[in-house]
Amino acid sequence: MGWTQVAKTACPIARSLALVGDRWTMLILRELFLGSHRFEEIQAQTQMSSHLLSMRLKRLERDGIIKRQNYQFRPLRHEYRLTEKGLDLYPVVLALKAWGEKWGRFKRGDGPALRIFHKGCGRETGIQLRCPSCSEPFGPRDATVSIEGKFERERNMRRTAFEARRRKK
Amino acid sequence: MGWTQVAKTACPIARSLALVGDRWTMLILRELFLGSHRFEEIQAQTQMSSHLLSMRLKRLERDGIIKRQNYQFRPLRHEYRLTEKGLDLYPVVLALKAWGEKWGRFKRGDGPALRIFHKGCGRETGIQLRCPSCSEPFGPRDATVSIEGKFERERNMRRTAFEARRRKK
Repeated sequence: MGWTQVAKTACPIARSLALVGDRWTMLILRELFLGSHRFEEIQAQTQMSSHLLSMRLKRLERDGIIKRQNYQFRPLRHEYRLTEKGLDLYPVVLALKAWGEKWGRFKRGDGPALRIFHKGCGRETGIQLRCPSCSEPFGPRDATVSIEGKFERERNMRRTAFEARRRKK
Repeated sequence: MGWTQVAKTACPIARSLALVGDRWTMLILRELFLGSHRFEEIQAQTQMSSHLLSMRLKRLERDGIIKRQNYQFRPLRHEYRLTEKGLDLYPVVLALKAWGEKWGRFKRGDGPALRIFHKGCGRETGIQLRCPSCSEPFGPRDATVSIEGKFERERNMRRTAFEARRRKK
């Protein structure tokens, strides 16, 4: 089953993955968040082939995650910018950064590769899960998940279909 | 260039992507966070082939993100559980969920597919970026990024190497 099929789910996580779940795509997004906006800059830092990079950029543009912006007219040159939809992927990138820092098998003494500072307070910032209702920190063990509506029906159907296929064998 | 090469970077984001940047892998992690722990359950919900699923599970186990746990002895049966390293991917999954809910092109009236409740306060919870230093909300526009040390040198080398390759052509 391909991702065009997967994307037809009621699950928001799978829908996100269908759009930006490709590793190269996420690496391009990293570059855009780091301030690389031109094709060559992105290519140099991701080390992607021109062909692969231009396919992924087209797809991101088609999906409304990035937009092309002219920065020169003679000859015409454009660069790539994140749209609002693209900028909203910031928490995903920050979450990957935090996990990589903790679990990426860096050597002691390597020092941080990327530091993010909050303009408002000037101090280093990052991702930290806090409940928006009570402001307390939370993690997977402090949460219960409820699968609802369409997604619940979808999951029941998948389970039934899977069991039926197994019985046939 | 393959991801074994990409993984040798100083960038924590790319290191994370090298381990969990594959879409199918993220879909498996979704299932584990939703409480599916057995091979067949995960297969039914992700609709992956047995071959692909078992390859991805082996890789996740080798990388210390999941562990196998026996739940029956005669015959021997095991299930898959997230390790601490795996549980730490929770913010990534929540960030993908939030983005998918906002941008996943759902129809009006579809209702939520997944709701997450904070055990502590009983209310619905989710991801919201707040600066850990000053507790104010922040986004990409409220942050500055500093590329440091090894990663800065790596990026300079990539830029130089890329320019050199281009001049040769």
